[in-house]
Amino acid sequence: DIPSEIGTAVTVQSMVFGNMGRDCGTGVGFTRDPSSGEKELFAEYLLNAQGEDVVAGIRTPKNIKTMQREMRKVHLQIENTAKTLERHFRDMQDFEFTIENETLYLLQTRSAKRSGIAAAKIACDMVKERLISKEEAVMRVLPEQLEQFLFPIFNPSDKKKFDEFTKGLAASPGAASGQVALDAQTAVEMSKKGSRVILVTKETNPDDIHGMAAAHGVLTARGGKTSHAAVVGRQMGKVCVVGAEKIKVNIPARSFSVDEKLINEGDYISIDGFDGKVYSGDIPVVASEVIQVMQGNMKERASERYLIFSTILKWADKFRRLRIRANADVPVDAQIAIKFGAEGIGLCRTEHMFFAENRIKIMQNMILAKSLNDRISHLNKLQKMQKEDFVGLFTAMNGLPCTIRLLDPPLHEFLPKREDLMLEIKELETNKSSSSLIDKKRKLLDRVEELHEFNPMLGLRGCRLGIIMPEITRMQVRAIFEAAIEVSKKKIKVSPEIMVPLVGMVSEIKFQKNIINEVAKEVLGKKKINYMVGTMIEVPRATVVADQIAKEAEFFSFGTNDLTQTVFAYSRDDAAKFINAYMEIKIDIDGKTTEILEKDPFTSIDIDGVGELMKIGLEKGKSTRKNLKVGICGEHGGDPASIEFCHKIGLDYVSCSPFRVPIARLAAARIALKD
Amino acid sequence: DIPSEIGTAVTVQSMVFGNMGRDCGTGVGFTRDPSSGEKELFAEYLLNAQGEDVVAGIRTPKNIKTMQREMRKVHLQIENTAKTLERHFRDMQDFEFTIENETLYLLQTRSAKRSGIAAAKIACDMVKERLISKEEAVMRVLPEQLEQFLFPIFNPSDKKKFDEFTKGLAASPGAASGQVALDAQTAVEMSKKGSRVILVTKETNPDDIHGMAAAHGVLTARGGKTSHAAVVGRQMGKVCVVGAEKIKVNIPARSFSVDEKLINEGDYISIDGFDGKVYSGDIPVVASEVIQVMQGNMKERASERYLIFSTILKWADKFRRLRIRANADVPVDAQIAIKFGAEGIGLCRTEHMFFAENRIKIMQNMILAKSLNDRISHLNKLQKMQKEDFVGLFTAMNGLPCTIRLLDPPLHEFLPKREDLMLEIKELETNKSSSSLIDKKRKLLDRVEELHEFNPMLGLRGCRLGIIMPEITRMQVRAIFEAAIEVSKKKIKVSPEIMVPLVGMVSEIKFQKNIINEVAKEVLGKKKINYMVGTMIEVPRATVVADQIAKEAEFFSFGTNDLTQTVFAYSRDDAAKFINAYMEIKIDIDGKTTEILEKDPFTSIDIDGVGELMKIGLEKGKSTRKNLKVGICGEHGGDPASIEFCHKIGLDYVSCSPFRVPIARLAAARIALKD
Repeated sequence: DIPSEIGTAVTVQSMVFGNMGRDCGTGVGFTRDPSSGEKELFAEYLLNAQGEDVVAGIRTPKNIKTMQREMRKVHLQIENTAKTLERHFRDMQDFEFTIENETLYLLQTRSAKRSGIAAAKIACDMVKERLISKEEAVMRVLPEQLEQFLFPIFNPSDKKKFDEFTKGLAASPGAASGQVALDAQTAVEMSKKGSRVILVTKETNPDDIHGMAAAHGVLTARGGKTSHAAVVGRQMGKVCVVGAEKIKVNIPARSFSVDEKLINEGDYISIDGFDGKVYSGDIPVVASEVIQVMQGNMKERASERYLIFSTILKWADKFRRLRIRANADVPVDAQIAIKFGAEGIGLCRTEHMFFAENRIKIMQNMILAKSLNDRISHLNKLQKMQKEDFVGLFTAMNGLPCTIRLLDPPLHEFLPKREDLMLEIKELETNKSSSSLIDKKRKLLDRVEELHEFNPMLGLRGCRLGIIMPEITRMQVRAIFEAAIEVSKKKIKVSPEIMVPLVGMVSEIKFQKNIINEVAKEVLGKKKINYMVGTMIEVPRATVVADQIAKEAEFFSFGTNDLTQTVFAYSRDDAAKFINAYMEIKIDIDGKTTEILEKDPFTSIDIDGVGELMKIGLEKGKSTRKNLKVGICGEHGGDPASIEFCHKIGLDYVSCSPFRVPIARLAAARIALKD
Repeated sequence: DIPSEIGTAVTVQSMVFGNMGRDCGTGVGFTRDPSSGEKELFAEYLLNAQGEDVVAGIRTPKNIKTMQREMRKVHLQIENTAKTLERHFRDMQDFEFTIENETLYLLQTRSAKRSGIAAAKIACDMVKERLISKEEAVMRVLPEQLEQFLFPIFNPSDKKKFDEFTKGLAASPGAASGQVALDAQTAVEMSKKGSRVILVTKETNPDDIHGMAAAHGVLTARGGKTSHAAVVGRQMGKVCVVGAEKIKVNIPARSFSVDEKLINEGDYISIDGFDGKVYSGDIPVVASEVIQVMQGNMKERASERYLIFSTILKWADKFRRLRIRANADVPVDAQIAIKFGAEGIGLCRTEHMFFAENRIKIMQNMILAKSLNDRISHLNKLQKMQKEDFVGLFTAMNGLPCTIRLLDPPLHEFLPKREDLMLEIKELETNKSSSSLIDKKRKLLDRVEELHEFNPMLGLRGCRLGIIMPEITRMQVRAIFEAAIEVSKKKIKVSPEIMVPLVGMVSEIKFQKNIINEVAKEVLGKKKINYMVGTMIEVPRATVVADQIAKEAEFFSFGTNDLTQTVFAYSRDDAAKFINAYMEIKIDIDGKTTEILEKDPFTSIDIDGVGELMKIGLEKGKSTRKNLKVGICGEHGGDPASIEFCHKIGLDYVSCSPFRVPIARLAAARIALKD
């Protein structure tokens, strides 16, 4: 609202013409290569032309190099100007120019957009050139841009040659192409035969893990960015596109379709985890050098990219206050995490270990046990296996702290699916099969029915299991301490932090802590292992009674996945369909047009809601335990905006999947520098 | 910790003997009848005996009336003493006495325990006798005690004659006996043939409503006190015992069993909704006079019980600050609510109207519609029916405020069950039935699968539906305003309060409010109907952003059922199994032995967690809208401890099921008097 009486200023400027003959021209330039970051002038121009001719794309502009021949003096002038601009602005510039009768006029200059790889290279180079400080270098690279160093990609030029037939949510970045497998078992078999496999399913479940491990990429019709497929995909560093809702899988026909397009099992497809696009055909994949160095397939010195990547991160580490941990369930993940700079494990999900082929049977027998003694005998078998897991983990971590979460998922996740059993029995009955077989299946179904829940997310899981079946907690804790003794005998320091999941009341953590301390006494005797007992804060109630809980818990770890689910009442397995719609529907609020939901709260912490409860929890927790250690281990631990928030409210650490650790390190440094 | 040096006081008192001969004796007495409340001395004694002889039950004591003959003077003395005690203590007394050589000695006196009916009668009588004030009378009756005036009961002497074979949770009070029906349809058929029916199922679903309506009582193997069966049971005033976990229903055999005990469909059982006990056989039921008066089957003046009941409530109404509303979905419930003293409807669940036999088909067609136009044509049919519902409701309420909640449950609740369809198709396929039939079923299953959710409680429901399918909101709102016009033409005032469910963000309420206001303008034109638009606060996020939400919402109603589910992460349909265990497992905290969970949070508001968030929501809401009207419409609205909490934090009203209204009125008065 500018009142009319104050008048309008008019800038009068003389026009320069690039279209007055062969000694005139116009062009745009970058002071360095915006794609690779190489320090060389990157510009294009047209003779006898105005700006719109270059932009409109009717005439193809020429590379600046040809100007050396056509207009040598001006070329030199442009080169010198580029240098002056960089020295003045201390950043790579994107500029426009016009040449009128061999005189160079600069029309505009601004900091240039660049790829992630270019951003990091330029930042490093400019430090060497003493143009900028290390602090500034760190501020010049966006955390997400580092991803480009990590994941294999498709060349854009290759993508254009293939048919993009549908699109989903980009859940785990990278690029993958291979032959379609429509279930986990088939994926494993095809992979054994040497095929590159893309697993395509309606959704994935914990028992699909071996199939995901065998596949190069995963494509699902259902689920959001934190669905099982997405979380495990990122965890494993697998390319993953989820929620491609148009996909209809037809298992009997061993095919899937999108509208009229039909793809059979075994056909080649390609999925791009950067933009969610899905192509038919086999697009070639370009591998990441950084990953090759990490895997030992390439020398550090041989890869300039690796050196740039690690230099930026080394600088970042100097400035950050937040510590960075990784979510890792098995030793191999822990090793990757350490290579990426993790300073500990923030979340080891012990149940992931139970889905292995040789264990799931024992787990099932444990669940189906008819008596406590029977159950304990199966638990004893699992204990030996869990102990070996922890030995591996503690050894890999070599003294770094290791947060181990006790069993969390509902038990029915380990049993066959209810519907499958019902259908099997129905078929056996209709075919009048042997009644003893039917009986056996029916007994299994009975137990599955007993464990069936309408809302498993809100059911018998987390510490509720460990309280009602304390023998499970005892088994896990015994495995932890026996492993700790074994590893510490090898003079390796061990720092277990035992984490009780889904606590909503102080009575729950107290009950579990009593068991943990009892078992510790039994197993350790006089041996000294420093351990902590803490809890996930992932239920809204825990945030408002955090003062009570902190009397027992020595650390908190915000489980922002579940906290987001409960604070919003959004099931992360079901919410994709309305979250996606919510992010598109517009609404005017206070004269501003916005979406119903501006960001997916499973991707970035919802600061007003979830964040507010985190603040309440943190404040209340510290009110009764001053030195309470507080971290976050939800998917948000790898999201830069969320990391910023965690820094601001004063958490001690964030924990994310191993492949997000570099991003988290950089994000933590940037917010510390901004502060 | 009393230090030994301060010494111990010893009271020395001379002993009196009741066992020194026939002119001695001992006894206990109540100044009025503790069961009926009648004003007559109720005492028992033994001659030549000491106190322990009366208590031990070895000798049968005699009624005080026989003392008139045996020891006339002492009898008169006891009668006078009783009167003196009452005048002194201003309450009914329970006293012990000994007679030594015809001299009466009083050993002890204290306020006597009494039945609910006695408590109310004595309170009324003592006001008449000018012993106590009306305020004191109100404080002398516990809210729950009023239940005894409302529900049919079994006589305890009758119960002893029958076999109690299992026990569940007492979910909806009263007593019912009848023949077992194992599904809703059978219950309806048996009831049509004139049988009294007890519906026994694993759990109930919304499509079982007609069966529950036909039954005298409902017994379920699953679910807690706020499970579907329990909520609807209380709503309908049906006797209901839920979560009788030992029951195994065997549908193919048309029977159910508890351990070795087998009950066939059609056998008689009796269930007691006061204590959750289940009996085999047909225990006679005694009806409540108050209910008979309400139903017009008995004159007010003919029932002393009714007069006592209504007198206490009349007094209570003078003292309470909280207003009391009822949860009622249909006109007949609204009428009952008004008779019980409701001052408005706090929750009308519009979806309950869609489960009626003639509507569910239209609802299903609406859900299965292939195009928006198709869907709207089905919605138009539903709109006419909804309008009639609201005409009935507004007419019954006669100007009292009426909170109408827009469609809340997920759409799949209106469709056939997924598993049933899968099994049906499997059977058709295995039998090689006609492929056109299979195709049709498969298409239905496809849509059901599309709507299927892993955690429906956290899925596409509430305002999420109304935002993604705004045509549903439009239909409902049009029905409300058309009904409002029709009723107001008959000179009946109409006060609709339109309530948007499951709001977690201000954008959601704003989006729905825009639609409501648009439709209001279209339908009302220049006609004036006062209406409000508000929201349920039932998602934790809503409590912490209540300041934003209150900018759009004119009223809040705390939906404490869903709020409890999300704050604890407890599914009310699944949590019974661990809640029950949690209420039994003991733990020491701060030197005090307690249970993991002291009270079922679905029965009484969890003050530390849910209550804390309610306080935050209330405070934030009022910070941006001073005159914000705030109530509660969860099941807790009928729970005295929760009503106390609502009074304390300053809510405007509580809303509960019609049969809980008297209890709420009394509870609200008592907390106001305590204040």
